[in-house]
Amino acid sequence: MARTARAAGLALRPHVKTHKIPQLARRQVEKGACGITVAKLGEAEVMAAAGIHDIFIANQVVGDAKIVRLLALARRAKLMVGVDSLEVAALISRACAAAGLRLRALLEVDVGFGRCGVSLDKVAALAAQMAKLPGLNLVGVYTYPGQVYQARNEAEVEGLAFEEARELREAAAKMRAFCDVESVSGGSTPTAAHYRPDCGLTEIRPGAYVYHDRTSVALWAARPAECALSVLATVISLRGDDRAILDAGVKALGREPAARTEGWAAVKGAPGAVVDRLSEEHGFLSLGGSDLRLKVGDRVELIPNHCCVVSNLFDEAVAVRGGEMVDVWPVAARGKMR
Amino acid sequence: MARTARAAGLALRPHVKTHKIPQLARRQVEKGACGITVAKLGEAEVMAAAGIHDIFIANQVVGDAKIVRLLALARRAKLMVGVDSLEVAALISRACAAAGLRLRALLEVDVGFGRCGVSLDKVAALAAQMAKLPGLNLVGVYTYPGQVYQARNEAEVEGLAFEEARELREAAAKMRAFCDVESVSGGSTPTAAHYRPDCGLTEIRPGAYVYHDRTSVALWAARPAECALSVLATVISLRGDDRAILDAGVKALGREPAARTEGWAAVKGAPGAVVDRLSEEHGFLSLGGSDLRLKVGDRVELIPNHCCVVSNLFDEAVAVRGGEMVDVWPVAARGKMR
Repeated sequence: MARTARAAGLALRPHVKTHKIPQLARRQVEKGACGITVAKLGEAEVMAAAGIHDIFIANQVVGDAKIVRLLALARRAKLMVGVDSLEVAALISRACAAAGLRLRALLEVDVGFGRCGVSLDKVAALAAQMAKLPGLNLVGVYTYPGQVYQARNEAEVEGLAFEEARELREAAAKMRAFCDVESVSGGSTPTAAHYRPDCGLTEIRPGAYVYHDRTSVALWAARPAECALSVLATVISLRGDDRAILDAGVKALGREPAARTEGWAAVKGAPGAVVDRLSEEHGFLSLGGSDLRLKVGDRVELIPNHCCVVSNLFDEAVAVRGGEMVDVWPVAARGKMR
Repeated sequence: MARTARAAGLALRPHVKTHKIPQLARRQVEKGACGITVAKLGEAEVMAAAGIHDIFIANQVVGDAKIVRLLALARRAKLMVGVDSLEVAALISRACAAAGLRLRALLEVDVGFGRCGVSLDKVAALAAQMAKLPGLNLVGVYTYPGQVYQARNEAEVEGLAFEEARELREAAAKMRAFCDVESVSGGSTPTAAHYRPDCGLTEIRPGAYVYHDRTSVALWAARPAECALSVLATVISLRGDDRAILDAGVKALGREPAARTEGWAAVKGAPGAVVDRLSEEHGFLSLGGSDLRLKVGDRVELIPNHCCVVSNLFDEAVAVRGGEMVDVWPVAARGKMR
């Protein structure tokens, strides 16, 4: 991913909500990332404590208690935060100004996902107001093109990446009357390979690529053999020749759909075998479409639909190379409620 | 629930996978439960360490490493385990016999859910063989009527409870030629109120009732005001008058469907407001059907579709009475991979 970003002249700021593991975040930075992205303050605190210096909280930080923590963190790290309303920006600014700080912020723009962020027509007015806030240093725009997970073919992915870059470029142009625009930040794992060198973005924030999953495969971002995160499950019961019951259910795999993909998990190395039903602690594995023959006690490696949600379910990840366990990484930023 | 069970002449053995909190398990026992049910060995170990003596692992325990732990635990607690194949039963028996132990076991019967368990026609042959195993003490049967979560009306729930009891009663009758049947164990939260005193069960194992959730409400097992577990979320962004973005997504609520119910979570005290889309860390709250008016920074209590999966996402639960925080309970049995 570092190579992909570099080839397009983009900085890479990986989203570490995928793995929540400081060791992996450090490795991403060593391999060329300019810093990291997190989804919430609790993740930022863990990563800063682990020595990651440059952190973007790509989310709105709301509430007095959080702002106190935000200020404390801003003294220890090169922090940047997302804002999408004058209201929240003013609250953060007031607290920062009182503490003698000026916090870097990016305005969140919505390019069609419909979550947080403002539409293009509101950018100039908001930027004008935010640029006047004494405790905030508005330095650019960001978006998340989440609608890419609905793409039906690779051309649509490419089209969305193009459209995202165009809108962010326009947003950045509108802001330049009011502030310096250092950062024009977009991206996701599926769109990452589709940005052109002249697209107007300065950085991308993909997350899932660090592991990849069935969603990455479905959206032309990875081959099955590139899925690096698996859940090791054991066959605990058999139902006829074509169905095995595994000791991994919703509490190990999540229940996330993957675009254009059936079931909840695949078996590594056994195309056609699919977990097609889930209970809390059981996976129902259909063997019908594969050559796999299993007996009770056999183990299978399950590739989940959505790796980010699986990380969040486990306290530790086991690092394996060539079939040998080489390390155990605490998922240190998991379980942060705030 | 203790009263409901007592009224039907049934013992209550609550499934603590719902909460995974020793303090709550102890309270359930104090209030009349005969012991507890767990979904896996890791949960049993935590509960035994917390002083819960009588524990049923309602699942197949497969694998050498697990059997070693099972034996260690059997020396410390009154343990009982599920079995549904001669193969697994023989492995457990061999290890137990070598250690001079005889472990209590229940044969798992499938009454239509199609997960683990054997069909009625296989009970006699399996019981005959299992009863000869020196390290296993077969003392009854159990099932899980998971198909109840597909019920379309309350009469179907009642019908399933009736049918479940009938099949378990028959299974028990078939076993009596080979062993003493002490325990005929069934149940779930939705079926719990539908067993008759003469139904043939000796105990029930509901779990979700300790909190209740939208699924309990959908299946006539609770009223909305009886849902005791909520996820406290903050409004971080607004989109027009009828949509708020919350800081609680899949990683806080899960993505479990609830029978006959739209969306992923409801707002406590605001009927009609529903979380109808989820990202990892965002909930999309539709206000259209409610009188709720929200601003950024407001907090809402979300009632999830499936409380058991939500417990599993948090390291702590905050106990609240009359709006006051009265305790913080570690979700001590969470995160047990095995």
